[in-house]
Amino acid sequence: MFIGIDLGGTNIAGGLVDASGQIVRSISKPTLVERGSDAIIADIAEIIQTLRTHSEDVESVGIGIPGIADPHTGVVLACVNLNWYDVPLREKLETIVGIPVFIDNDATVAGVAEFQVAQKGQYTNAVILTLGTGVGGGLLVNGEVVSGHHGIGSEMGHMIIGENFYDCNCGRNGCLETFTSSKAIIKYTKHLLENGEVSDLIMTAAHGDINNINGQIIFDAAKKGDALANKVVDRLVKYLSRGIINIICVVDPEIILLGGGISNAGDFLVDKIKLALEDLKYYKNSALAKIEIAKLKNDAGIIGAAIYAKMHQ
Amino acid sequence: MFIGIDLGGTNIAGGLVDASGQIVRSISKPTLVERGSDAIIADIAEIIQTLRTHSEDVESVGIGIPGIADPHTGVVLACVNLNWYDVPLREKLETIVGIPVFIDNDATVAGVAEFQVAQKGQYTNAVILTLGTGVGGGLLVNGEVVSGHHGIGSEMGHMIIGENFYDCNCGRNGCLETFTSSKAIIKYTKHLLENGEVSDLIMTAAHGDINNINGQIIFDAAKKGDALANKVVDRLVKYLSRGIINIICVVDPEIILLGGGISNAGDFLVDKIKLALEDLKYYKNSALAKIEIAKLKNDAGIIGAAIYAKMHQ
Repeated sequence: MFIGIDLGGTNIAGGLVDASGQIVRSISKPTLVERGSDAIIADIAEIIQTLRTHSEDVESVGIGIPGIADPHTGVVLACVNLNWYDVPLREKLETIVGIPVFIDNDATVAGVAEFQVAQKGQYTNAVILTLGTGVGGGLLVNGEVVSGHHGIGSEMGHMIIGENFYDCNCGRNGCLETFTSSKAIIKYTKHLLENGEVSDLIMTAAHGDINNINGQIIFDAAKKGDALANKVVDRLVKYLSRGIINIICVVDPEIILLGGGISNAGDFLVDKIKLALEDLKYYKNSALAKIEIAKLKNDAGIIGAAIYAKMHQ
Repeated sequence: MFIGIDLGGTNIAGGLVDASGQIVRSISKPTLVERGSDAIIADIAEIIQTLRTHSEDVESVGIGIPGIADPHTGVVLACVNLNWYDVPLREKLETIVGIPVFIDNDATVAGVAEFQVAQKGQYTNAVILTLGTGVGGGLLVNGEVVSGHHGIGSEMGHMIIGENFYDCNCGRNGCLETFTSSKAIIKYTKHLLENGEVSDLIMTAAHGDINNINGQIIFDAAKKGDALANKVVDRLVKYLSRGIINIICVVDPEIILLGGGISNAGDFLVDKIKLALEDLKYYKNSALAKIEIAKLKNDAGIIGAAIYAKMHQ
């Protein structure tokens, strides 16, 4: 048995996972970021110890963190959303729980779940883009998970692909994340509404308050033919396909999976992306990566972290 | 002994290379693209046979092609500059010369030369960007040369990183190549001059004819403080550092080498790139790939193709 921890800005979710990637039991606690790293690490340890009371043979723990980790040292280098910098997460946790702990980026471990468990290891060159509040990435090259020499690889959400009307959390302008995350499309929708464009469908679904607008409302309106919503989706598609082309220009994977909240738009989104990619091909008959929706949804974080631990111990 | 062939749009260069990567003898012929692939393949075969008269133990041949190859089948999928599409180069050549032939992209084999020979294999995660007439890329991940699942990987020159005033040869707009190749900076310099900006230094060096402007003239003028030349170099630096950040966001290599004609600008260019990268870091204390000038210059193509053959036979 393995324990997978999905450390998010809102919740810490932990699960007991068997070697085949099935969640046997899970627990969730609010993260309460403002408490700082030591209190949060104590809660992670408590989740681990509670899960261990349900199995005598837990071999190791994997943790997906929402930022940059050094998988070799187990140090969280930078989590902007948690305000963590240089936190020796592995060392601190191993001291408390006494079994091996492995950490990596949350999208990287979500990729492990999708590629190793959901896709049963059939792909050896693959990418996952998690299109949530932010945009994360996971990368598999020649069957190995790639996090880069300094642990800052597979952060595809921070590729710079254009100029945007607002800056990214990371301080740069033009990051893929600022065009293709749920936060990005919400911001752009508000931007259009505040600049005189109208959408009855969106405003009705949002009960008249633009602060209620979310990704689901935008995609629902787009599917019903709403002009403003389609303008927002078209912009997302333009930049997401540009980001996908750039990933192809570097590693040319066999498949690119789309996960996160935005991926709930399903085939409506995938069909548009495929059409846009046809126009962006390097040459007419060029083969391109398959584009598919990720399968595991919210469980990918826990399952992937656990299987990541299994792979690395 | 191995034979390396550097197939370019202007010349076909071939060399007899020993197992340590030293060129023992070399030959060059004009490509004369308009003759079509069969005549050019016949010339490549002739170069190979001539080189073999100087050594009895040539084991195999490597060829770097200026475009996209499928290393598994040995088919040239697309070379825009040669107007070659789906040319079975390996099969045709092996039929004539009777020894194994291996093909891959020219920048990929240049990377093999730099990383295996010049850097003596000390880096296992590395990138080379060849900044010539176009921009090519070579990629090493976990010690393996990566050309991607469909053979269209490590084409970093075609990442889309902005909007440009002219389209790329590949048909897209905003490719890295259209901001950072020698062709790109020449085009931008002419664009500025034709739109009323002036540079006495550049026009004197070009003997009064803007069609004589080349990369060397632009960098020489920039080093002497010429305002227009520095505007051109600053734009190159802005987009090249953006491209480098995007490569880091995907594979985070230990080192990025700059080759090709533009790299003759040396430290003048490297220092500016490093400064720009400091501003583009994902977080303040983030480690970044080393940026260095490639060492082998024009010989990289022949040496790399030969060593590529040695690695793959």
